[in-house]
Amino acid sequence: MRAHNLALVLQTVANSTNQPSRAAVSAATGLTRATVSALVDDLVSGGLLVEVDPPPRTGAGRPAVGLTLTSTGPAGLGLEINVDYLAACVVDLTGAVRQRFVEHADQRPADPAQALAALGALAARARLAAEADGLIVAGAALAVPGLVAGRGLVRVAPNLGWQDIDAVAELHRVPELADLPVTVDNEANLAALGELRVTGGDPTFLYISGEIGIGAGLVLDGELYRGVRGWSGEIGHVTVYPDGRPCRCGSRGCLEQYAGQEALESGEPLAAAALGIALSAVVNLLDVPVIVLGGAYAPIFERLREGIEAELRQRVLTSGLAPVALRPAALGADAAMRGAADAIIRAVREDPAGWLRRSSQRYV
Amino acid sequence: MRAHNLALVLQTVANSTNQPSRAAVSAATGLTRATVSALVDDLVSGGLLVEVDPPPRTGAGRPAVGLTLTSTGPAGLGLEINVDYLAACVVDLTGAVRQRFVEHADQRPADPAQALAALGALAARARLAAEADGLIVAGAALAVPGLVAGRGLVRVAPNLGWQDIDAVAELHRVPELADLPVTVDNEANLAALGELRVTGGDPTFLYISGEIGIGAGLVLDGELYRGVRGWSGEIGHVTVYPDGRPCRCGSRGCLEQYAGQEALESGEPLAAAALGIALSAVVNLLDVPVIVLGGAYAPIFERLREGIEAELRQRVLTSGLAPVALRPAALGADAAMRGAADAIIRAVREDPAGWLRRSSQRYV
Repeated sequence: MRAHNLALVLQTVANSTNQPSRAAVSAATGLTRATVSALVDDLVSGGLLVEVDPPPRTGAGRPAVGLTLTSTGPAGLGLEINVDYLAACVVDLTGAVRQRFVEHADQRPADPAQALAALGALAARARLAAEADGLIVAGAALAVPGLVAGRGLVRVAPNLGWQDIDAVAELHRVPELADLPVTVDNEANLAALGELRVTGGDPTFLYISGEIGIGAGLVLDGELYRGVRGWSGEIGHVTVYPDGRPCRCGSRGCLEQYAGQEALESGEPLAAAALGIALSAVVNLLDVPVIVLGGAYAPIFERLREGIEAELRQRVLTSGLAPVALRPAALGADAAMRGAADAIIRAVREDPAGWLRRSSQRYV
Repeated sequence: MRAHNLALVLQTVANSTNQPSRAAVSAATGLTRATVSALVDDLVSGGLLVEVDPPPRTGAGRPAVGLTLTSTGPAGLGLEINVDYLAACVVDLTGAVRQRFVEHADQRPADPAQALAALGALAARARLAAEADGLIVAGAALAVPGLVAGRGLVRVAPNLGWQDIDAVAELHRVPELADLPVTVDNEANLAALGELRVTGGDPTFLYISGEIGIGAGLVLDGELYRGVRGWSGEIGHVTVYPDGRPCRCGSRGCLEQYAGQEALESGEPLAAAALGIALSAVVNLLDVPVIVLGGAYAPIFERLREGIEAELRQRVLTSGLAPVALRPAALGADAAMRGAADAIIRAVREDPAGWLRRSSQRYV
């Protein structure tokens, strides 16, 4: 009950547009002022909330002290490995990005252990910089362009040439990360979740992420749809031309061969048409009203838009009844690592009691 | 609370493999024997449950009277209009089919009012026959091969040539149906729901229904996924060959043009390949582990299987990690009208208090 109420108070402060007083939190939650005060004391002493001076007020009464999320407490470390870059960021409890490192380099020549060691070094830099800045990194989440099977095992990442790689174990070899909880997820899934939380708008959309490979994250009614084995969203391997170009995956005519980053450089109109064909299949199957273009598609969105829309108009059965909205990702190319960091922060915000317990054990 | 407990008792009897006594229902539900007895009395006098003599038993104690669903109470009228047939069936509370009428005739030359009048006549025959047999038809559900927009409006049924048809109003013109609650839904959606309840097995599958047109019903975690506007499952208009045959919908290369019933007659291998291409897209996007082939595909399942599986092996990224199971629909070509009738029965079973209230008003 206390754990539930701690989360309720923390979320109430987090979701406020101003800096609410204890009395305002009491009114919003229905908890008594005494209960709220005790919970707020715990959240303040545990380093999750801070008290701020009220703005000077004219008029009667003493203005109350406001509450806000701390910018020096727990933080999330978001990591991404993709075919041509490594990235790490640290996001604090308020959602602000506090550290951001991106290293462009082709990862395909490296073996998985080398690539993850390089990412681990970047992650260690980000963590140390964040902790020098007063933050406590609560955990890390890693975004990978491939299929993940629970507990950090990357089953297949076709464009990296990875198979059955224990990414968590590799990251834990880096001394500065050895004590850190690490989770792994598909990059498009994390990017879609990042997009969902940042925009807070459409509850149902497809997020499509264009890199060397192409992935998608499907958000249905505000929830990421992962599929039965967690392997949904492999839109890069949807066939657009059945007898078309051979793909690394062993099939032919995959979307990736026409609209992946390498194909994109040589022919945007062909890429837009191929995207339009594959996205029409998504809309016909799922009646998804919004498509968000992320990764490499975000900066060239306006150049792809018309070609995609032409295919949607022709190929979506209901296009005459209700148009499909296309938009670029709000988080741009950082969506996956931001979504990863956000997953850590979200876990703290949803279970502050767990965080207080773990952090008191750590620092006793 | 009484409404909830009535439903609980009814469902407990319905889901029993034997004919449970009042004591057994009390044990299964956690309700007191006195409460169960009062609720059972209401369900018996309301014509939803019947008491049956226990089997003769050797041994001590007087054997208890068993309970079972009535086969003379409320029933569901399932209706289907498709391009080349009309169909009606009546299913009783136990799920048994009590009446079944199918009329083969091309509906495309008829205008919507004529077609629905003919279906209404068939429905009236089914209703009268069922009521002569001691059943009370609680409502009707109509399966249509098209897009439905709430309250019985068929927005588009491309293969029937329908647009914005108020199917409920048309059916209500038939005097024998004028008092009957009627709902309308997409045929593949109803068929998928019928399949889900009859097999009771896989919680996540795609049901694909081959008629003149092709529709799909997507069941995710035991729930039909309808899409934001209720227009999911239009797999017949997923592009398989971007520059292929023109389709009635205005697009080119739609699955329907290669694997719809008319195409099927002239080339099963081509149909199987086209189905395999479209179904691979579904599995890549949604990680659906089971595909159920219904409608015209069910009887020729074995002839299509190999061709579809060859495409899935080539085109599904995860086919090497976990195969996709293909199977024919358990309900065969009747799936949509059975699913429609079942929707009515299910509503009675989930809210027996509502049924008792309505039927007492009707027969006072």
